[in-house]
Amino acid sequence: MRMVELIEKKRNGKELTPQEIRFIIQGYVRNEIPDYQIAAWTMAVYFQGMTVKETAELTLAMAESGDQLDLSIPGRIFVDKHSSGGVGDKTTLIVAPMVAACGVPIAKMSGRGLGHTGGTIDKLSAIPGFQVELTEKKFLQQVQTIGLSVIAQTGSVVPADKKLYALRDVTATVDTIPLIASSIMSKKIAAGAQGIVLDVKYGSGAFMATLAEATKLADIMVGIGKNLNREMVAVLSDMSQPLGNAVGNAIEVLEAVDCLQGHGPADLMEVCMELGSWMLVLGKKADSTQDASIMLHEAIRTGKAFDKFLEFVRAQGGNERLVSKKELPLAPIKIAYCADKTGYIQHIDARTIGTLAMHLGAGRETKDSPIDLGSGVYLLKKTGDAIQAGEPVCYLYTSSPEKTPLALEKAAEAITLGDVRPYYQKLVSTVIR
Amino acid sequence: MRMVELIEKKRNGKELTPQEIRFIIQGYVRNEIPDYQIAAWTMAVYFQGMTVKETAELTLAMAESGDQLDLSIPGRIFVDKHSSGGVGDKTTLIVAPMVAACGVPIAKMSGRGLGHTGGTIDKLSAIPGFQVELTEKKFLQQVQTIGLSVIAQTGSVVPADKKLYALRDVTATVDTIPLIASSIMSKKIAAGAQGIVLDVKYGSGAFMATLAEATKLADIMVGIGKNLNREMVAVLSDMSQPLGNAVGNAIEVLEAVDCLQGHGPADLMEVCMELGSWMLVLGKKADSTQDASIMLHEAIRTGKAFDKFLEFVRAQGGNERLVSKKELPLAPIKIAYCADKTGYIQHIDARTIGTLAMHLGAGRETKDSPIDLGSGVYLLKKTGDAIQAGEPVCYLYTSSPEKTPLALEKAAEAITLGDVRPYYQKLVSTVIR
Repeated sequence: MRMVELIEKKRNGKELTPQEIRFIIQGYVRNEIPDYQIAAWTMAVYFQGMTVKETAELTLAMAESGDQLDLSIPGRIFVDKHSSGGVGDKTTLIVAPMVAACGVPIAKMSGRGLGHTGGTIDKLSAIPGFQVELTEKKFLQQVQTIGLSVIAQTGSVVPADKKLYALRDVTATVDTIPLIASSIMSKKIAAGAQGIVLDVKYGSGAFMATLAEATKLADIMVGIGKNLNREMVAVLSDMSQPLGNAVGNAIEVLEAVDCLQGHGPADLMEVCMELGSWMLVLGKKADSTQDASIMLHEAIRTGKAFDKFLEFVRAQGGNERLVSKKELPLAPIKIAYCADKTGYIQHIDARTIGTLAMHLGAGRETKDSPIDLGSGVYLLKKTGDAIQAGEPVCYLYTSSPEKTPLALEKAAEAITLGDVRPYYQKLVSTVIR
Repeated sequence: MRMVELIEKKRNGKELTPQEIRFIIQGYVRNEIPDYQIAAWTMAVYFQGMTVKETAELTLAMAESGDQLDLSIPGRIFVDKHSSGGVGDKTTLIVAPMVAACGVPIAKMSGRGLGHTGGTIDKLSAIPGFQVELTEKKFLQQVQTIGLSVIAQTGSVVPADKKLYALRDVTATVDTIPLIASSIMSKKIAAGAQGIVLDVKYGSGAFMATLAEATKLADIMVGIGKNLNREMVAVLSDMSQPLGNAVGNAIEVLEAVDCLQGHGPADLMEVCMELGSWMLVLGKKADSTQDASIMLHEAIRTGKAFDKFLEFVRAQGGNERLVSKKELPLAPIKIAYCADKTGYIQHIDARTIGTLAMHLGAGRETKDSPIDLGSGVYLLKKTGDAIQAGEPVCYLYTSSPEKTPLALEKAAEAITLGDVRPYYQKLVSTVIR
């Protein structure tokens, strides 16, 4: 098999065989196929696409390029959740303990934030003492004991994706749906869960700008999972404004605690209930999402969900007392951004708020930027809310006073006021199975 | 300027600016832009194409990447000729002395053969003593003195093309018309001629399979040249059967001598007259191709063309006596391939004959294969000729007896006999100015 012929085959729009795809990925990981041939191939994929069968094979070949978790414990069905990334997306912190409290074990590997989007691992790091890196043995032990563990993805999982992503990043082939889908799914497949709930966002704060694009991505990912014998559900939701009220790290943990204690913001709870319900259905703990929803509400009402969260924090070395007292430290400088007129919030642009939070110190401009875990944004109002002139729309938290002028400018850019209440936008729009 | 953004711009079908194209080529030659980014970019060019303006800029940037010849001598207009490659194409050996004999100076750099196509430099090497490598000074001196020199292209001319071609070869982006056009034209521009006659072939023995594709390539090359202020003509001709009767190296020099002495095969002379006439017109020695054609016929009739050829051979150290006596050594084994029935030659497939000649030793399978200069094919019949059963269609010359079985098989594959005389195919079909 010669790589140049496989590039030409894809360039000409033909379907590659499983053997050919395996040859490409294995050859690349072993440094037998050079970067320049992979770069030409990914650009050909950008133009010619891949079938679901090809994409599933690619996913499997990538998943098999490194360590794979074995989560097969008799009688227990592991369900994983993946979010395609957004602004203020702290769903894992809420859904994981809720679902675990209902008896579906969660063994999850998460990522860090980049650019305007946050990452679960950074948020967990805002809890003093919390260990995001565990050995595989300790990780699985904790899952056995308390039914829940969330750790940072290690470099030994899907090295093919790491290598391929770095190349795509510098060759303008990042936004190639089959490559995005296989990148996400290979990590989920390697992580070993039998069921996967995909949380696919669309809108300014998401990777996919429109519902149509998000549907395309979700369809392919569901197709890949089914091809590889996983139970699959994709939930599509709007990310044109931030999810919930908090955007940052410590501040998002505090909001997650609110949710687990039964008084979270409506939009955030809607998404968490949808995702959690499907996880209980895939985990065979409920027959329908209606039944599942009742179980989840009950787990919150009785305090079991929050107890599971505290148990989880304690197990990974985090300061449980600070969490339960809601005393995580926020950044010392707090500025109010106020409305300049009376009216309604027309729009709060998620991407701009994400960039603003990054500017305040809550996110990373590049992979190696440091993070100020106490900084962030807290929205007092959301799209559709009425507001008076002079009333604060949001608070900005930072440790660097010199950041305030640009931060206020960005807040003004993100938030649009108007005289008429805007039309209601549905939050969860589609479920793909 | 960031290369990843230029890849994305081209990927999205936008036109790159002259500065951007220069940035790419200069960065690549200086090793500041890595192979993998260029590979992604060339694949994007494969799908999105380039405008004539972009292709002209690319050509110029490539031409300026290395040494450039300065052919500006007051009162003299240099005209170059480029053939897109074929089987039995010895036109340079005939046209160059004819045109030089009529007063248009020729300072030409030529290539070696690869695969089924031959190269002028290999053919000249078949003349004992002939030097294909001269210093730039000696080359220009010879042009000053006798008005004609042909040498091998040196590595210091258009290094960008050398590097880019090697990369395209392993990334399935060779057959990309703007990249083919700029590769050819950059070498012509660097070689310094003010007028360029392009000899673009189509059909099985050529790089372009159809007249439509050849026209596309010719259009772009003429566009590039005009953009860079060159006088341009492209002549499109059929290469579905070999040009002339001889295919090889020494054997083609002997056929060129026949032509210069006034008894060359009709098809070969037709193409040579067409190309030579346009060269005299671009060189301002004739007002029309009709006038030019009379001058060329006269140069042959009076022996001036052949004398110029001998002068040229002598100047570059070749054995003039062997050439004038037509005593260049051919390979020792000569086999006749004979017709198995009476009828007409329906078709002689150029590519198969080219591959056959290569197999006999006359061409290179890879860049570094050795060549047997005396081997080759001599066609006694061409398409449309009548033939008797048992009569030889061609002679095969080789030094390796073990090559004969496969050679005869290939000859049978290349040559099709039939009962009816086939339709006449026009040889020169279009001229693009």
